[in-house]
Amino acid sequence: MLEHGGRIVAAARQYAIPVEAWLDLSAAINPRPWRVPRIPAAAWARLPEEADGLEEAARAYYGAPQVLPLAGSQAAIQALPGLIPPCRVGVVAPGYYEHAHAWRQAGHQVQALPAATPDQAADDLDVVVVIQPNNPSGDSLAPRRLLDLHARLAARGGWLVVDEAFVDATPERSLAGYSDRPGLIVLRSLGKFFGLAGARVGFALAQPELLERLRERLGPWTVAGASRYVAAQALRDNVWQAATRARLLKDAVRLAALLARHGLPPSGGTALFQWVVTPAAAELHEFLARRGILTRYFDTPSSLRFGLPGAPSQWQRLETALRLLHSESQPAHPPLTKGGRGDLTVLAK
Amino acid sequence: MLEHGGRIVAAARQYAIPVEAWLDLSAAINPRPWRVPRIPAAAWARLPEEADGLEEAARAYYGAPQVLPLAGSQAAIQALPGLIPPCRVGVVAPGYYEHAHAWRQAGHQVQALPAATPDQAADDLDVVVVIQPNNPSGDSLAPRRLLDLHARLAARGGWLVVDEAFVDATPERSLAGYSDRPGLIVLRSLGKFFGLAGARVGFALAQPELLERLRERLGPWTVAGASRYVAAQALRDNVWQAATRARLLKDAVRLAALLARHGLPPSGGTALFQWVVTPAAAELHEFLARRGILTRYFDTPSSLRFGLPGAPSQWQRLETALRLLHSESQPAHPPLTKGGRGDLTVLAK
Repeated sequence: MLEHGGRIVAAARQYAIPVEAWLDLSAAINPRPWRVPRIPAAAWARLPEEADGLEEAARAYYGAPQVLPLAGSQAAIQALPGLIPPCRVGVVAPGYYEHAHAWRQAGHQVQALPAATPDQAADDLDVVVVIQPNNPSGDSLAPRRLLDLHARLAARGGWLVVDEAFVDATPERSLAGYSDRPGLIVLRSLGKFFGLAGARVGFALAQPELLERLRERLGPWTVAGASRYVAAQALRDNVWQAATRARLLKDAVRLAALLARHGLPPSGGTALFQWVVTPAAAELHEFLARRGILTRYFDTPSSLRFGLPGAPSQWQRLETALRLLHSESQPAHPPLTKGGRGDLTVLAK
Repeated sequence: MLEHGGRIVAAARQYAIPVEAWLDLSAAINPRPWRVPRIPAAAWARLPEEADGLEEAARAYYGAPQVLPLAGSQAAIQALPGLIPPCRVGVVAPGYYEHAHAWRQAGHQVQALPAATPDQAADDLDVVVVIQPNNPSGDSLAPRRLLDLHARLAARGGWLVVDEAFVDATPERSLAGYSDRPGLIVLRSLGKFFGLAGARVGFALAQPELLERLRERLGPWTVAGASRYVAAQALRDNVWQAATRARLLKDAVRLAALLARHGLPPSGGTALFQWVVTPAAAELHEFLARRGILTRYFDTPSSLRFGLPGAPSQWQRLETALRLLHSESQPAHPPLTKGGRGDLTVLAK
């Protein structure tokens, strides 16, 4: 099993800092989640029913004709590779690594595609997996360009899989409205934008035949009844959604500026995270973790992903820690030279 | 996809009776579920963590050295057949039909075994699946006998899978305590006894190597964070568990007596349901459904499963409907002749 971010409990052990003392920026989840209301007892007691209004709420929110609820988009990421015979698959890199892992596990031939130009090798591929916007690079392609890529693949019976886990704040970048086209599969999730990662609710948007095959493979009742109830309410809350889009976009600018001010100008980002490519990523991750700030470290390329702080005190805490980067003088935590993109000096331990 | 009981929304449409007006006895779930407390916001917002205490609570409750949380035992029912090369599998019948379905789907050769004597054909089989106690027949085997069956299978590298979804009220019948034996796989669920079917939490109990393979196949975060929180609390609530065991066993006797009094003596049952075998099962199901009482109909053998009523008014409602069975005189709903086991006269429509 691949290891994942969000493992605050493990970090708490490793750094001997209690769970509740951490500022967790590792999961890139909206730090001010949709507020879960009281849940009817029946949602816990009864087997989840398909006719409870969740699908309807999702169709309206996504503007998609057909949706299949999932226990997070992770469920589709794992199951989709089993629905097509072994073939040539291109997966953007860097990118959420469960995609390539799942396609390889299912016996496909997988090659990496650049996140900014996933369409270059399309004629030699049967399936292309893109992340829109990309996690962690933040690359985002014009929908028209993705639709062109899809058309080239679909003409030969291929698929375009678009993981839109981070698209909610910029819905004009989504392909959800085109998901009735054969061979186009869009994955959505309530984990990031709604801040409901613990609910385990996502959706596959695609043609009914494909969704039925996916449903058959996943089996019944994969989404908890209480989670279905929560998700349906959140998807219908247009007022919260609009306010949250505005706030996240503003906070993303603020985070990028804060990082740049401290010598860590992001190479890219979305409304929910900023991505800093630097050869000193491992040291920086360690430096922040010792201060109870958990970020997401990537080794290829050497980089860190910063989720958004929430409360004012959290912004302050991140700023204080970044300021220490330059003033810290103990040998174990030497100062990092201020520089431009990828320009931070790696210092010997 | 197989169709399931518990589809109250569909029944509401079919019989034009609003959802909230039904007495649902179809799912055999404890009608007085464990009461879900306030859930911390973090359980919804954060990715589920494995170190949150759920596994520990489950090990203590089941008396099992190793547990793997699942999105209901359904998840393991679907995944287990993929962990062993195609082989000869015996599955008890009648029994929860997802078992045979899943093994067939995965390419195994499946044969039906009598629920009361699943051990007869063991020497010709590689895997045996039993349900303890059986759903819907209520058959329950002495643990020693199941351990003998297991030993015969395991000696040849085979498996015994024991689905214990209905065992919680009679824990002395469980094989959980032996689940460290190679080739013994016990499935448990919080759906029935705890009345938390909507939480989608179950467990596989088995050797660590097998659980790791199952975990790898199912992938990360299959159980919602909120569900993990609820499950951990419920598994630790020993006082509620003891009181509930006593109550369910008493209510089961009461339900069996009520059915017998109205000419429907059960052929078997557990603490959570009674099973009535009768050639008139389809008519009886229809008769009760028209009165807003949903039972679980089986065609092979022709039978009905009755879950427990909860509130006094629900007991009264079932009794009233059963009384009508004998007094009803419209041609469309003719009286059913009173009789013994399987003795009800089937009446022409």
